[in-house]
Parts: sequence; structure tokens; C-alpha cells
Amino acid sequence: MNSIGNRLILTSYGESHGPTIGAVLDGFPSGFELDMDYIQRQLDRRKPGQSKVSTQRKESDVVFVDSGVFQAKTTGAPIHFYLHNQDARPDDYQELKEVYRPSHADFSYEKRYGYRDHRGGGRSSARVTAAWVAAGSLAQQYLESKNIKICAYVRKIATISMDDDARFYRLEEVDSSIVRCPNPELSKQMENLIAEAKENGDSLGGVIECVIQGLKAGVGNPVFDKLHAKLAHAMFSINAVKGLEFGGGFAMSERRGSEVNDSFEATDKGIKTTTNYSGGIQGGISNGMDISFRLAFKPTATIAKEQRTVDQSGKEIVLQAKGRHDPCVMPRAVPIVESMA
Amino acid sequence: MNSIGNRLILTSYGESHGPTIGAVLDGFPSGFELDMDYIQRQLDRRKPGQSKVSTQRKESDVVFVDSGVFQAKTTGAPIHFYLHNQDARPDDYQELKEVYRPSHADFSYEKRYGYRDHRGGGRSSARVTAAWVAAGSLAQQYLESKNIKICAYVRKIATISMDDDARFYRLEEVDSSIVRCPNPELSKQMENLIAEAKENGDSLGGVIECVIQGLKAGVGNPVFDKLHAKLAHAMFSINAVKGLEFGGGFAMSERRGSEVNDSFEATDKGIKTTTNYSGGIQGGISNGMDISFRLAFKPTATIAKEQRTVDQSGKEIVLQAKGRHDPCVMPRAVPIVESMA
Amino acid sequence: MNSIGNRLILTSYGESHGPTIGAVLDGFPSGFELDMDYIQRQLDRRKPGQSKVSTQRKESDVVFVDSGVFQAKTTGAPIHFYLHNQDARPDDYQELKEVYRPSHADFSYEKRYGYRDHRGGGRSSARVTAAWVAAGSLAQQYLESKNIKICAYVRKIATISMDDDARFYRLEEVDSSIVRCPNPELSKQMENLIAEAKENGDSLGGVIECVIQGLKAGVGNPVFDKLHAKLAHAMFSINAVKGLEFGGGFAMSERRGSEVNDSFEATDKGIKTTTNYSGGIQGGISNGMDISFRLAFKPTATIAKEQRTVDQSGKEIVLQAKGRHDPCVMPRAVPIVESMA
Amino acid sequence: MNSIGNRLILTSYGESHGPTIGAVLDGFPSGFELDMDYIQRQLDRRKPGQSKVSTQRKESDVVFVDSGVFQAKTTGAPIHFYLHNQDARPDDYQELKEVYRPSHADFSYEKRYGYRDHRGGGRSSARVTAAWVAAGSLAQQYLESKNIKICAYVRKIATISMDDDARFYRLEEVDSSIVRCPNPELSKQMENLIAEAKENGDSLGGVIECVIQGLKAGVGNPVFDKLHAKLAHAMFSINAVKGLEFGGGFAMSERRGSEVNDSFEATDKGIKTTTNYSGGIQGGISNGMDISFRLAFKPTATIAKEQRTVDQSGKEIVLQAKGRHDPCVMPRAVPIVESMA
Repeated sequence: MNSIGNRLILTSYGESHGPTIGAVLDGFPSGFELDMDYIQRQLDRRKPGQSKVSTQRKESDVVFVDSGVFQAKTTGAPIHFYLHNQDARPDDYQELKEVYRPSHADFSYEKRYGYRDHRGGGRSSARVTAAWVAAGSLAQQYLESKNIKICAYVRKIATISMDDDARFYRLEEVDSSIVRCPNPELSKQMENLIAEAKENGDSLGGVIECVIQGLKAGVGNPVFDKLHAKLAHAMFSINAVKGLEFGGGFAMSERRGSEVNDSFEATDKGIKTTTNYSGGIQGGISNGMDISFRLAFKPTATIAKEQRTVDQSGKEIVLQAKGRHDPCVMPRAVPIVESMA
Repeated sequence: MNSIGNRLILTSYGESHGPTIGAVLDGFPSGFELDMDYIQRQLDRRKPGQSKVSTQRKESDVVFVDSGVFQAKTTGAPIHFYLHNQDARPDDYQELKEVYRPSHADFSYEKRYGYRDHRGGGRSSARVTAAWVAAGSLAQQYLESKNIKICAYVRKIATISMDDDARFYRLEEVDSSIVRCPNPELSKQMENLIAEAKENGDSLGGVIECVIQGLKAGVGNPVFDKLHAKLAHAMFSINAVKGLEFGGGFAMSERRGSEVNDSFEATDKGIKTTTNYSGGIQGGISNGMDISFRLAFKPTATIAKEQRTVDQSGKEIVLQAKGRHDPCVMPRAVPIVESMA
Repeated sequence: MNSIGNRLILTSYGESHGPTIGAVLDGFPSGFELDMDYIQRQLDRRKPGQSKVSTQRKESDVVFVDSGVFQAKTTGAPIHFYLHNQDARPDDYQELKEVYRPSHADFSYEKRYGYRDHRGGGRSSARVTAAWVAAGSLAQQYLESKNIKICAYVRKIATISMDDDARFYRLEEVDSSIVRCPNPELSKQMENLIAEAKENGDSLGGVIECVIQGLKAGVGNPVFDKLHAKLAHAMFSINAVKGLEFGGGFAMSERRGSEVNDSFEATDKGIKTTTNYSGGIQGGISNGMDISFRLAFKPTATIAKEQRTVDQSGKEIVLQAKGRHDPCVMPRAVPIVESMA
Repeated sequence: MNSIGNRLILTSYGESHGPTIGAVLDGFPSGFELDMDYIQRQLDRRKPGQSKVSTQRKESDVVFVDSGVFQAKTTGAPIHFYLHNQDARPDDYQELKEVYRPSHADFSYEKRYGYRDHRGGGRSSARVTAAWVAAGSLAQQYLESKNIKICAYVRKIATISMDDDARFYRLEEVDSSIVRCPNPELSKQMENLIAEAKENGDSLGGVIECVIQGLKAGVGNPVFDKLHAKLAHAMFSINAVKGLEFGGGFAMSERRGSEVNDSFEATDKGIKTTTNYSGGIQGGISNGMDISFRLAFKPTATIAKEQRTVDQSGKEIVLQAKGRHDPCVMPRAVPIVESMA
């Protein structure tokens, strides 16, 4: 329920408006030298309120590790991270105690648990993903030591979209843009669109693309635990994700086999495919090409426009315009996708 | 690896060209009266070679159950199904023993296991899904006894697409068409397109839509085991699936929050949303609306056109046109999607 | 429920009086050359009716493998075994349909499933362990290729007991005795005692000892998945096991630390302990010494003496003396313990 | 590795000499009113240094809960507990950095992880069980609300043993004795023996008995997840446990079926067994009688007597008498057994 993974298992806890959020990472190899700054850098990338385009809520994203690491090396024991929540403002939510906000988890959560922690999103808040980023940044360090690199970037905000093929971008290329789209011109357009949406109290959806470089052929399983099935399980765990496609994805379903079959050829780096419509995965198993996939994020549900809905008794409620909202979760989601991939 | 599920666990075994394929279904409630014909009907729906539009290979799809059922009732013990493979023709594959067929799992599978069962697709073959259909048809019977109904249909073949909103269709509506698209006119067009592709030795991709009706609100989990994350794990287990979207999906990522937020209203059937962009799932938990999702299938990799590729030694190989292929796996995938949902 | 293991997973199915029992073994390494005769030999060792000391019921213990093996090598795919039940005699049990036999699972099983397959022990029958022996004999072959050897033998029948320290015995030493006690003199006494008990329609309990040789230091986990905790989970899965102790066990609990602490010494084979009260496991992790443990089996519940009990309605029933029973399950359990260890 | 349970999952973290130990409890029902004092009382029972018979090390056993509980009720979210370690005295262990202490996990742990946190027992320390007691005391509260009660008591210290049948004792009866043996006279003898052993720098083993009252018939599974197999997995997770027996246990293996078969009878409370050699479990499933089992604890490995051993280089080392040790872990283990049962 709150754990993911088989050999490397992440167990998450904490609510957005409780004192702390945290996670336990179990199964990490022993004797690995950790760069603690690396973890913090990823958390800083995730942090909201970094620019005019994202939410203004301040979150304290200083991560603490109090087990599983000794003298900067992993010990093989479970690694526990936590972050304090400094911006817990329960009062803000008091008036929403009995209201079902449109496209939030208020209603379904209440049906699930017979109960609602009205202080905020609780477990449904994107805040809990901060601990995933911490855990993921450990996994990323380990993978990088094996020359496996993960990159995620914003491909599309609303209808403004890159049309290049998926490819690996260096962190500097992604982070050079406030919206984390590596195309400078589109990045500027996206920024403006977000600013406009924000001014209008509205929010935007978008697409993040992730590319994994350096994974050798032969990773995955042919039946239920296909490599992409397990990535899908992880990716749909990220808040607001409503779609996922690998390689040629939905567009490929409009084509013919003769157009999109990936043929093999012998190269000086071994046997490779000439194209990569498969997104690096064939029959559920990596084939040594870049793994690539795209995630569709719905627009953030929290908007500052008037909305009609009902409360627990069924009484109609008009939600008034509010100041605080996050018009676009994309930039924050980029490090999460990297972490979860 | 070859099991899926938590409380109800399906363990699959068998290769396409071995003597048998089968599965063990564990955790099924005891005392449930099974309709064995229901299982066989679903297997018949899955069976290839039913029409000119699908592959001509004959498969014996008579399912046997030899444990977990006594006097037509489930006993609580694990239920074992199996089907004989009567059409195992290892000779057909002898010449492909060392060739990496384009977009097949030959290469990645060999890297994974250091070994290839060259008699056929082995575990990567769609043949193994027959046992999933058997297992799924048991689950479906149980769910129907709780008034939860699952329907899947072909929404799109190549570029021919329904543009209606997702909705529940009765089995007769789906099965009235050879391609299992409930729109008779489009169905005819799809049929013709498939016939044309087949004549040209080519294959087509498509999109299947699935709608689950009657699931009460409150099913799922808010963090890692979100209802759609678990469905995603299952759906990406189906061969040739390259994309998945829930509710508004990828299209919704181009919109604004004010356009696609699902508001709540009080109805005579309780609190419902006025729209269903969420696809029946909010915050990972069902909200009582129809669950809906779409799967993108790539075109079948096996085509009867000349293709270039390499063998294990890297030597270039030209695959010649062959008679046997399956231009479109969609109709067969429909019962699989129902089973896995 | 019906699966055990983490990386190597055994899923069991089948009832004692259904047509078949079987199992799926998932996660076995690919490319391993199997000796199929080895499997059959272990099944033959398990088979009842081998001598006057054990039950006369004939069981067909020819094992079939129909997946996961190709040209005598494992393929990495799940391995499915099955055995036919030729001695299913449902009539024998008809009269017991509503009776709760003393110390059988009839009552608890019925409470669990609301239902009883009165044809026999069903899933509770020791018959289902035949498939474990098959699976275990594959694992044993693999372990032996890594120089890890498992031996199990009868240490005690009723009060006749070996008092030697646990040690590794070769298969020939164990099998030289009909009761599988490697001490010839005690073996003879045990045999006579069993014959006497049988004549009196009674059954006997006993203790099996298991020694694992060649496991390197460092296997196991310090907290929940301690090596002996996982062995315990497996061992208590064997029917009729009521006790388990490692190394010094219960006797050690009467001693002082200064008497039973295992000190380390440097030897020409590396660092070893001078004694082995720990049974080869310290802090849940193997220390390179022999792993040793003992299992207490209760007397077989099926006896041929008159017994009083009740039926489903609470009516008192007198069970009459019957011809068929198994006075001592020990010899059959020996290969099961080897398989499960 | 560091998690246990299926529906209710405990994930443990922390080392004895790090800043904190803690655990996450996932799957606890929502809306349950917790008595936080109950948790603290159990931790106080576990705390060492309560009397002259147990170790003098002070541990801060104030438990903090920072998620999963809101307004004293569980929310359904994972519950995170932690305790600070105030008595971390790394200096004490500096000189043991390279020594393999007899019957400790130093050697096996180092082989497992290629690394040793020489500050203390690390994950192997009994200190980590404090968080299990916290978690267990939540589970106990829930079970008590369903009228299921768990009791554990010291049955035996060295050779001083109760010879009564296992039965349920009230908490006051157990806690009236410093050594937690409910027999006042034996309790006094045990206390004296422990004092004597302590004076001689030695330690003692013993046996704890656990009785679970009120569990209805029908809980458990007939094959691998037998109720006692799962209890065994949990019980062998407790430090220093070397043996476990249910009901008649090892003694029953010396008897005949006619002597120890549990017959059924109709009583005014329903169908019961006349005796309880089965320890409340038949065929892996509870039968509605008291569940009873006994755990053998080896003597604490830490003693204050001179001992010979070696260090990492194989050099012989004489461990000198030290002041601090715990002659008997029994009283502390009692609440752990209750928690884990």
C-alpha cells in the first residue's frame, strides 16, 4: 500500500500537514559512498516556489538521514529519510472540511477510509513525493556509478510542444529553463502561457518525457513483471499522471508494422536497432537502446477560479477564487519522474 | 516474475510451443458457483482464426480445471487451469533459430536468459494469455455477482477511430462486429482496412477501450498502489501494449483546470461528478463513476513483407515474405483486457 | 497462501483426491542442466508403501514436467511439475463426510472455507508435499553444483533417540535404514517399535534432524528475514511439525552463556567457531559452520483404534478401528525436510 | 528484509547506537481510537534497567508518533513511530572494533555486508525491538477490541521451570513478578538464580510461553501460510530465540496418536476439543481453542567473564571481564513476544 519495489523497497509515510514526511529505503547495497549534497540538490529542484511560474507555498526541503549510513557510506541497513513540514497551515483548510473539491481526492479518500484529515491533502498531497525524490536520488547515484543515467524534461505545456524525438539531455540543459524544457524558445512560450494562466486563476496540464541511457540489454521479465509494466506501476504513482506511453506509444498505434518495426543491425558497439519505436523495451525486456517514455499530467486541480461543487450533505457550494495555487506541476514533477524511473 | 496480484494471485506457466500452457489462480473465494461455459466462451472469443481478419493459426482452446473446484463450486484451494497446445510446429521456426526478428523479443530474451527456446515465442508469445483469459473469466463471474461489469472494445484501428465518449457496451454490441468495434459503420471500414493490410503482408495497430461499471467509491490506495497504478501494471503485461491513458488522458494534458475539473453534484443516486475526465479514479481511489481507460497496441511485429535484420553473429539477414501472420491483434486482445482489468 | 519463497517461488496446487497435484517453480536460473532421474529418485524416497513400517496406500509418484525445461536444460521460464493421483478412493471417505476426525484439519478447514471437500484431506493431505519434493530436488541439484549439501535423517522415534551431535550423513548412510535413521542398532529398535504400534492400530511421533553443509558465511538478514526465521516458515509448512529448534535449541536454554557461547578461532580453513551451539546462524546470518536444526513431528493423527468425537451437528460419533493408517510419517518426511530446507 | 506482515506490514529501521530507531506500520484500519498510554506502558515493560535482575543500561523509551494518527484516531495512513537513543556510547565499543565476540553477530554481519558499524550491535541489537513493541501494542489494542487477548510469561529460567499446562494469565499476574513468571515461588527462585549468575558475570537462558485467547476458528491457511508457520517467522525474528514449539511440541513427539489426538465434543460454547495438544491450530488453521507456544531463548551472549576469541586478522584475543551485561533477557522479551504474536 505504501511500499514500492521488490529488491529495493521504498516505504513512505507522513501527511502534507503533519509535522514530518519521510520514507524508509530498504535493500540498498552496503559500502556505497553517498554524496549527500546530490540528494539535497534534487530536493531543491523539486521545491515549489522557485519562480513565478510555480506555486508560492514554501516547503522546508532539508532532508535528514538518521539510519543506514555511517561515515558517509551505506551500511546495508534500511535508510530512513525525513523532512519537516514548516508550512503546515491547517487553518486554511478549516472551511473546506466538508467540501468535496472538484478533481481532488476528498470524496474518494473519505469513501476509502470513512474519514478525512481535513488539514490538507494528507497522503494525497504531492508533498509526500519529496521523500521519493530523496530515495530516488540515492538510487540515481548508484545507477550513475554503473553508467546508467536518467533524464526527465518537460516536453509539452498545454499545446506548446517540442516535436523532436526523445533524447538524453544533460541536467544543465534541462535546468537552464525555468520550466525545465530544454528548448529555449518553447521554454519562453511555456513560461508566458503559465503566467497568463496564473493571472486568470487557472492551471495547465502537460507532458514530461524521460530517457534512460546506459541500461544494458536483458533487464526485465517476459510476462507480468515486464520492465515497462513495473515502470508503469511507479509512474502512475505520481500525482496527476493520467497517461503513459513508451517509445512510439499512441502514435505508433496508427501505423503499420512495416513502418515501425525496429530492425537490428551490427554496429561497432554491438547489435543495435536502426530505429527505436520500441522505446528500448522488447517483450518486456530491455534491448540496450535508450528507454524512453512520456507521461501525461492533467492540469492541477487546485485553481483560483470560482467552481461549483457539493459538501458532504450534498449541499451545493461555490468555491471562491483564492490566491494560492499551482498553475503547473510540471517543473516539480521532473525530478520525481527521474527518481521513480 | 510470473505471478500477478495481491489477494487474488495468478501464476502463469507454459510456452507457446511446449505441450501445455496453464496457470494457478490463488485466493479465489470458496463456495462460489462457477459457470464453466462462461470460461470457455471467453476463450472462444480470444481464439485466433475466427475470421478472415485475424491469424489463421489454429489453437486448441479447450480449458481444463483440475483443482480448486468440486461439484462446480470453488473450494478456496488454488484453481489450476491448463490448455493443450495442438498447433506446436517447431519446424516453422528452425530457420529463425539464430535470427533476431525485428520488434520481436528474440534479442532481449536471449540477453536476459543467455538462451533461446527457438521453437517459437516461448514465454513471449501471446499464446500464454489464453490462461489469463481463463483466470479473468472467473474473476469476471465473481465481479458480476457483485454487479461490477467489465467491457472492452476496439476504439481504433490504425487511423479509423470512434470519437464517442467512452461508455459501457453490452457483450452483444461488441461481438456483433468481427473486429469488436461497437460502431457498425466504422467496424466495416476497419474490416476492409485489415483485409487490405493483410493482402499487402502488413499489420496494423489500434486502440482498445475498457469501461468498468458498478465499482463503488473507495477502492484503491492513495500512494503507491493507486487503483490505476495497479491496473497499469496489469495492462502493460499484455503483449504489444505501448500506451495507456485513463479518463481524459493525453488530450486532457492540453487543457486547463477550469475546463476539465470534475465537479460534484447531488443526484438521486448519491453524490456524483458532472463530468468524468478523471476516468472514475481520483487520488488513486475509485469515486463511483465508470472506470475508463484506453490501451495503445503497436502493429503486430510479425509481417509477411521482406525485412532486413541480423543474426546472432551480426550477419545481415533478409526475412522473406511468409504466408502466416496476424495483421491485427485487437479482436483477440479485447477479452484479455476484460480479463486483466 | 499457496506460494512460498522470494526469488525462487513455489506455487502449489491440487488435492489428494483430485486427479492431479502439481506446482510451479518460478525464478530458477536458466541454462542449468537437470538430472530428471534425481527428481524421480527423491520422489521414490518419499513414496509411502515402501516397507512394512509405513502406510500401504499406493501413490503414483511419476513426475511430469511440461514447461521451463528444453533439451534437459532450464530455460528461465517457470517450471511446472505434476503427478497423477491414481489412488483417489472417494468412497472410503463418504462416511466421514460430516465427522470431525480427532487432530485432523476437518473442523478448522470447514470453519475457514465454509465448506469441506469430504473426499479426503484435500489441501491438508501430506500428498501435496510430493510436488514440494520435486521442486526441492531441483533446488538441491542447483545447490550441490555450488557445493552446498542438505541431509535429513530420523533422530528419534517416540523415545528411541540418537544422542550423537548433529552431523552430515551421506545419502547411503541415511537410506541404508528402512526408517532412515543412520544408526543401525537404533534403526532396528525403531523398526520394531513401529511394527508393534501398527499392530496395535496406533501411531508414533518423532524427530528429524537436518544438516546443511557448505553454506558460506553471510547469508541471511539481521532483522525480520533472519535465515532461521525463513527456514522456520518453510519447516512449519510441513504437515505434523509441532516444534523446531536450531543448534543447541531448547536444551541450550537451560545453560549459561559461559557454557554455550561459540568462540572464534583461526583455522587453516579460515575463521571458525570452536563449538556450534548457534547451529551455524548468528544474528540471523550464516557463519559458515554447518546449519543444523531438529523438527518435532506429532504422531500421525490417523490411527486404527476406536476414538470418540462428534459430527457437524455435535452428535457423538465412535470412529471404529480401520485397516489403513500410517503409524509413522518420519521416513516419508525425510526427503520433504531436505527439499524444504 | 526489514519488513514483516502481509496486510498489516511493519517496516523497521534504526541502529542501537544511531540517533533514533523507528518503524512504519502500514495497513492499520482507519478510525480506530488509540490509547497512547497503552503503547508507552508496553514500552516501559520492555525497558531494561527496571530491576537488579536485568541490564543496567538506560534507554530512553519515549515513543513518538508523527503520522497516521489525527485527533487520537488512526487515519488509515501509515503510522510512523520513533524513539531517540540517548544512551549511545560509541566509545565503549571502540576497542571491540575488530574483534569477533563469541556468539554475537559481529562475524556473520561483517561477512554479509562487507562492513561493520562497530559502534554497537547495529541492526542486530535487541534495541531495535522497541519499535516492534510499539507497533505490537497498537495491534494488541485492536485485537482486544475484538476480544482477542495475548499473554506471555516466563515459564523457565535455566532449569527452574513451571510445570503447569499453558494457560492465559492476566497482565497483573505476569507483572507481579520482577522476572514475569506468574508463579510467585518459582519467581523468587529465578530472581535469586539470576542474581547469582550476574555476580559471577554469567548469563542464563530460558523459555517464554505465549497464550492467545479468543481467536475464532478458521484463521490461517492449509499449506504454506499455516498460522503457526507465520507465527514462527515472526517469533524467530526475536533476538536469541533458538527454539519454538506449539501445543504438545517436542514432548508430544515421544507419544502415541491414541494418547495425544485431540477429540471433539459438543459444549454449550460450541464444538471444542477435549484436550489441546494441537495448541489451537489444526492443519495450519485455528480451531477456536487457545493458541499456545513456547520459545527457547539462549543465554545472552554478552557476559562479564573472560572469553577467548579472535579478531579480523585471526589474532587470538582475550575478552576481559566487564561490568555491563544482561544476565537474562527474558523479562524484556515478554512484551516483545506479546507484540509479535
